[in-house]
Amino acid sequence: MTPALQKADWIAVDWGTTHLRAWSMTDAGKVLDHADSSEGMGSLAPDQFEPALLRLAQTWLGKGTTPVLACGMIGAKQGWAEAAYATVPCPATATALTRAPTTDPRLAVHIIPGVRQNTPADVMRGEETQIAGYLAQHPDFDGILCLPGTHSKWVQISAGEIVSFRTFMTGELFALLSSQSVLRHSIASNGWDDDAFAQALDTTLSRPESLAARLFSLRAEHLLHDQDPQTARARLSGLLIGAELAAAKPYWLGQPVTLIGAAPLTARYATALSAQGLTPEITKGDSMTLAGLTATRTAMKDMI
Amino acid sequence: MTPALQKADWIAVDWGTTHLRAWSMTDAGKVLDHADSSEGMGSLAPDQFEPALLRLAQTWLGKGTTPVLACGMIGAKQGWAEAAYATVPCPATATALTRAPTTDPRLAVHIIPGVRQNTPADVMRGEETQIAGYLAQHPDFDGILCLPGTHSKWVQISAGEIVSFRTFMTGELFALLSSQSVLRHSIASNGWDDDAFAQALDTTLSRPESLAARLFSLRAEHLLHDQDPQTARARLSGLLIGAELAAAKPYWLGQPVTLIGAAPLTARYATALSAQGLTPEITKGDSMTLAGLTATRTAMKDMI
Repeated sequence: MTPALQKADWIAVDWGTTHLRAWSMTDAGKVLDHADSSEGMGSLAPDQFEPALLRLAQTWLGKGTTPVLACGMIGAKQGWAEAAYATVPCPATATALTRAPTTDPRLAVHIIPGVRQNTPADVMRGEETQIAGYLAQHPDFDGILCLPGTHSKWVQISAGEIVSFRTFMTGELFALLSSQSVLRHSIASNGWDDDAFAQALDTTLSRPESLAARLFSLRAEHLLHDQDPQTARARLSGLLIGAELAAAKPYWLGQPVTLIGAAPLTARYATALSAQGLTPEITKGDSMTLAGLTATRTAMKDMI
Repeated sequence: MTPALQKADWIAVDWGTTHLRAWSMTDAGKVLDHADSSEGMGSLAPDQFEPALLRLAQTWLGKGTTPVLACGMIGAKQGWAEAAYATVPCPATATALTRAPTTDPRLAVHIIPGVRQNTPADVMRGEETQIAGYLAQHPDFDGILCLPGTHSKWVQISAGEIVSFRTFMTGELFALLSSQSVLRHSIASNGWDDDAFAQALDTTLSRPESLAARLFSLRAEHLLHDQDPQTARARLSGLLIGAELAAAKPYWLGQPVTLIGAAPLTARYATALSAQGLTPEITKGDSMTLAGLTATRTAMKDMI
């Protein structure tokens, strides 16, 4: 006989465009269970959000109402309920939540707002919760957080607040160029070359205008000089990250930088920044979202 | 009764990745007929090239053998027959042709080689024939030819030869970003805004490192400030062309420049270059390929 599953005090949810992750939590912050699915916000119609969540969390629910705290693109206009952005400067930990409509009385779903910056125009949804998680563990941190990925974020933190930030489409550009453009014939889907990465990064970091000319060279070097497709992959990554670092220089120059994300990407950014005389810290990103949801739940416990 | 069609003295063919264009020609360079199809080289297997050409040109063939002169990606490794590149510096008009295998005795198919540059590695296939067409009409031209498009080419011409060139993936980047990336939600498929184009162009031409930061702004400006998707379209074009012009500056600075291509793209490059103090000429690209094929046929008439 299976022992009765302990019911959730609350449920933490990270709901992005392409993924849904949920954790069954106690009030003390202990993880009882977790579950993932590929039912991202981007693939669901408005009436499909509640069933998708119930498919993951059904067994965690008791007889009463269980609070659910969700972050990510689920709060976008096309999501479950639009959660209005907080505007910088603002705390990373949300101070207002948006209630999503539900039919099952066992659910009370609250969505964390994203963060906006009016000038230069920029937005985030989900990263603010990773940042809240990091700041819960490092409450005195003042400096720059960099979250590399599909849409890399560079974030200035001061006195516990998000002061300003900037988004770079580096990861999405890498994916489009390596799999959808003419370069796809010359770029391997995996593999690496440290030296090629370092050289390419240095090229666009020191002469950012060269990016436009260097991209097609990846194709021509393959056609004319049998360039290894794994080398081309590292070189494309270096060119794009170098261009990002050149543009983000006002953020990182002379600042303490912490990288939040997954290996090996954070290690590549760290190598690049070390070559510029910085000593960046690295924090794994996957645990920061749950830490941020937990910090938000703790801060707003009397509301949800 | 339909009058008998005059048979071709020779057939000119422009065969790219996505298109096939053919003209029935007299030895004197008169166009008797023309036909297009979407049977580009990229969609055909090796045994499908000859039937695809016959579908267009069947009625132009007499009882004897008709010479066919073809340029473009049809000479690539995946094409009908690989035509080895000429290496810069070299004349734009081909001095060697590659014979493609045929089974129909009425066809004798000759393919024009592309042009390669070993350092920096670069290649062209098809543009060399447009250049040959331009130089046939302007034999004393010394300066820079710019052929904007999917893969823009900047080409240095001196003493009738291609001296050096550089390829920029500007058109392909525009297509990928405007239709495949997260920006697609914020960019119209047509429409324009001259002021937005000019401002964006100036931004990346004067500060090329800003490209990486400006791309995601196109999305955020829409979400936060209701930026018009037609304005965003012009802005994306300006950012990318500005980055190309910044990288191509060693080509155009202080040089006579002729733009070869289709309106309105050539007009946009002309506007941008005029703002830098240049007075570029504009030549329509669609007639240059046939002019180049004709010039090559004339030069090599005793061979084909």
